[in-house]
Amino acid sequence: MTLAEIAAYLQTVLSDVELLGDGSIDIHRVARIETAAQGDLSFIANSKYEKFLTETAASALIVPKTLPVEPLNGKAFIKVADAYTAFVFVLEKFMPRVPVHRDGVHPTAVIAPSATVHPSASIGAHCFIGERCIIGEQSVLHPNTVVLDGARIGNGCVIYPNVVIYDGMNIGNRVVIHAGTVVGADGFGFAPQPDGTYKKIPQVGIVVIEDDVELGANVCIDRATLGETIIKRGVKIDNLVQVGHNCFVGSNTVIAAQAGLSGSTKLGENCMIGGQVGFVGHLEVANRVTFGGQSGVTKSHLKEGEFLRGSPALPLRKQLRQEALTGKLESLFERVKVLEAELASLKRQ
Amino acid sequence: MTLAEIAAYLQTVLSDVELLGDGSIDIHRVARIETAAQGDLSFIANSKYEKFLTETAASALIVPKTLPVEPLNGKAFIKVADAYTAFVFVLEKFMPRVPVHRDGVHPTAVIAPSATVHPSASIGAHCFIGERCIIGEQSVLHPNTVVLDGARIGNGCVIYPNVVIYDGMNIGNRVVIHAGTVVGADGFGFAPQPDGTYKKIPQVGIVVIEDDVELGANVCIDRATLGETIIKRGVKIDNLVQVGHNCFVGSNTVIAAQAGLSGSTKLGENCMIGGQVGFVGHLEVANRVTFGGQSGVTKSHLKEGEFLRGSPALPLRKQLRQEALTGKLESLFERVKVLEAELASLKRQ
Amino acid sequence: MTLAEIAAYLQTVLSDVELLGDGSIDIHRVARIETAAQGDLSFIANSKYEKFLTETAASALIVPKTLPVEPLNGKAFIKVADAYTAFVFVLEKFMPRVPVHRDGVHPTAVIAPSATVHPSASIGAHCFIGERCIIGEQSVLHPNTVVLDGARIGNGCVIYPNVVIYDGMNIGNRVVIHAGTVVGADGFGFAPQPDGTYKKIPQVGIVVIEDDVELGANVCIDRATLGETIIKRGVKIDNLVQVGHNCFVGSNTVIAAQAGLSGSTKLGENCMIGGQVGFVGHLEVANRVTFGGQSGVTKSHLKEGEFLRGSPALPLRKQLRQEALTGKLESLFERVKVLEAELASLKRQ
Repeated sequence: MTLAEIAAYLQTVLSDVELLGDGSIDIHRVARIETAAQGDLSFIANSKYEKFLTETAASALIVPKTLPVEPLNGKAFIKVADAYTAFVFVLEKFMPRVPVHRDGVHPTAVIAPSATVHPSASIGAHCFIGERCIIGEQSVLHPNTVVLDGARIGNGCVIYPNVVIYDGMNIGNRVVIHAGTVVGADGFGFAPQPDGTYKKIPQVGIVVIEDDVELGANVCIDRATLGETIIKRGVKIDNLVQVGHNCFVGSNTVIAAQAGLSGSTKLGENCMIGGQVGFVGHLEVANRVTFGGQSGVTKSHLKEGEFLRGSPALPLRKQLRQEALTGKLESLFERVKVLEAELASLKRQ
Repeated sequence: MTLAEIAAYLQTVLSDVELLGDGSIDIHRVARIETAAQGDLSFIANSKYEKFLTETAASALIVPKTLPVEPLNGKAFIKVADAYTAFVFVLEKFMPRVPVHRDGVHPTAVIAPSATVHPSASIGAHCFIGERCIIGEQSVLHPNTVVLDGARIGNGCVIYPNVVIYDGMNIGNRVVIHAGTVVGADGFGFAPQPDGTYKKIPQVGIVVIEDDVELGANVCIDRATLGETIIKRGVKIDNLVQVGHNCFVGSNTVIAAQAGLSGSTKLGENCMIGGQVGFVGHLEVANRVTFGGQSGVTKSHLKEGEFLRGSPALPLRKQLRQEALTGKLESLFERVKVLEAELASLKRQ
Repeated sequence: MTLAEIAAYLQTVLSDVELLGDGSIDIHRVARIETAAQGDLSFIANSKYEKFLTETAASALIVPKTLPVEPLNGKAFIKVADAYTAFVFVLEKFMPRVPVHRDGVHPTAVIAPSATVHPSASIGAHCFIGERCIIGEQSVLHPNTVVLDGARIGNGCVIYPNVVIYDGMNIGNRVVIHAGTVVGADGFGFAPQPDGTYKKIPQVGIVVIEDDVELGANVCIDRATLGETIIKRGVKIDNLVQVGHNCFVGSNTVIAAQAGLSGSTKLGENCMIGGQVGFVGHLEVANRVTFGGQSGVTKSHLKEGEFLRGSPALPLRKQLRQEALTGKLESLFERVKVLEAELASLKRQ
């Protein structure tokens, strides 16, 4: 397609789109600026990448309104307020991945007689759908996914291969779940007995995953002991994350890979949880709180909008100060030694 | 059922159960005290929840013997020594989850001719059971689970979907394994070669999982290089835990989510390993040792009953003291600065 | 077989192999020195294990050239430069694990008509191979593995059960992938929108895994947003590791369990990444850099051959010094208090 056609499409979804240069340029591919070649459309969203502006071989670039550029050497530009979002729209529109298995129920899938699968849904090879399950409109289950008795999956969901949804789980609409993820395994609850053994606490609650949630690969979201583990609308969870029983994750909160929430952690809305962060159980976190990677969260943080880091986690400025001072300990020990010597010499006088 | 029936059941499993109030109350559900409604039975096991005693709408509560309560407003009580364990018994008895697929061998399961599956065992859809495997009495394998050649699974086990048991593994009785867990992948062993490449060390040992062990979802227990990786009786392991080759986990030890044991770690009995704890390899830990979340264990801890935390892990009191002092570094630097100024001024005099 | 036969085999693969003692000894098994019995061949590669030299019941031992040993009590020795590598050769040659399912395409496997499976490849029960996939010579896919449209797997690969390879992935030759691993799930990319929600950034790139790579169980390697996530030749990755989108892992780099690479991390060749290490995104690491377990890597490390540890990671010597000084804080606070008292008393005079 031509650059003019791309600019025209962006005008339908964004306001204030400006095309600078030759709109008739033919675009063959979308590429990162470091690797873009003749015929490619690329973008600059981060000032760190402005250095590539002159050297890139890309035929066209999406750039921020504020970046002073001029069409030259046959290179053209699309200027927008948010170059990254514009680029995402282009990617979405012009580089769709092949949808897999939008072709109804595969003959090798095993579906219980009492299950209800919408005629527009697709169930891949070797899937298993238990009794009384409900699979909504246009939802796609990739091969080898297992949905146990009584689970419900809404409309427009994409469930990748080898996902397991335990019995009774409740999944909303437009939820994406990547391969190997397990929703609804038993919470980790055992009552210690006088003889040193543990008695299992039955885990009879469920997991509720609201609309527009995306879960990465090999994630674990445990069912509640009683009641519900809740993942609110718009939450995004990366690979290998652990969410314990009875947790509550507020809407639009983002959790990076390998983070872990112990049981009954309650996160607010629009929080950002870094990779490998760990939460002690039964904590509460306010809205828009950010934890840097590997933070260890040992108490509730009820102040909205805070940024914390470290283990135990401290407000960022305090943590950075503490790290800096720890780095200067060598000199502090030296200074104290000098003081001691000088004081001793003073006293001797 | 009625509250009197529940109390009567508890008397069959616990000593010293006392019913206070109207035993004819009809109980419809078991619920957490924060969310309990009319007709619900709930419990208070932790003094933190005593505040709900007056406000809960629950019709009846299980409470500790020591809690002074009086039946009023039609609310009744069951008093016991350990309210939590009593509650677990009630949950277990009156709120069983629907057992899945207790119906023999599904026709889509593939079972090697030389495998022995007990007639009372259930093998779910699309399971694969390799040559010479043995599956014991009453064991249930959920759909899409794979058991490779020569593996043995005892009696009364529950294996959830998409579990993989490698060849030759040995699983005891009443073992529960949640979805996506892998028992017996190769240990991580590679011999460095002069040209910078690595030569794989064949991993020909096995994993032995004794009776009454429970493994969470997406756990990895690696096979031994030679000999056995051993998980002793009654061990409970949470989701996403890594147990390296040739580890030994003593009986009734509990390992929280995302913890990792490097190869040849040896843990005692009744240890408690917090979430995201990491062990350097070839360490030994005594019985009843506890490591707080995110601890980094870099040496053996042979003193029974210790509580450690931090990275590197220190005895709790020492670690807390160190954290507190680190938090006061700002003031210490300030004090040293003052001392230096005062000393300089003294010397000038 | 006899010890002389084993020695003869080692002479075909290693230089300078010396047999001391009775070559006619019959060897039944290879075992670790702690557990070796009569008829076993064992080895000593680490001086820590030399104490077993006299007490072991093993009939023969592989030992380093430099260890002074004498055949006695019917015990014999094979002396080599690198006892560990020699032992690995013996293990490999004489204790092969039973290969599983080298028997063509299982009738329950679902293979798209446009896929190309080499006649010598084996496809296990309930596997799914999508459109236009290519599976090379002698490659073995264990049961329940899913390969989505357009993915390519080279020659001599072993893919264990329940692995998922997403559409378009490119896997080299002799690659080993353990159970439950996911190659090619979407990178974690979402553009924040003014209303607090996130817009998904399409992930249209792929993963390239070069020859001789081994991936552990339940690993996640995300596809690139655009372009490629690259795992170079000879890389070894342990269980539960996360590799984010657009990462580059240099050849022969080793990554231990539960480590996590955020998006666009670039690791050099022959690096060693400890367990549970975390990398902030967009960092670069030079060749032969080692990070100790649980390191938190917050900036690029471009000096070859460095050894770092801690969170944030510091050069080892510096980190150890800092840990030691932190451990002495108690005494430092005490010394400052003494100084203050003495100075006050001096001033009073």
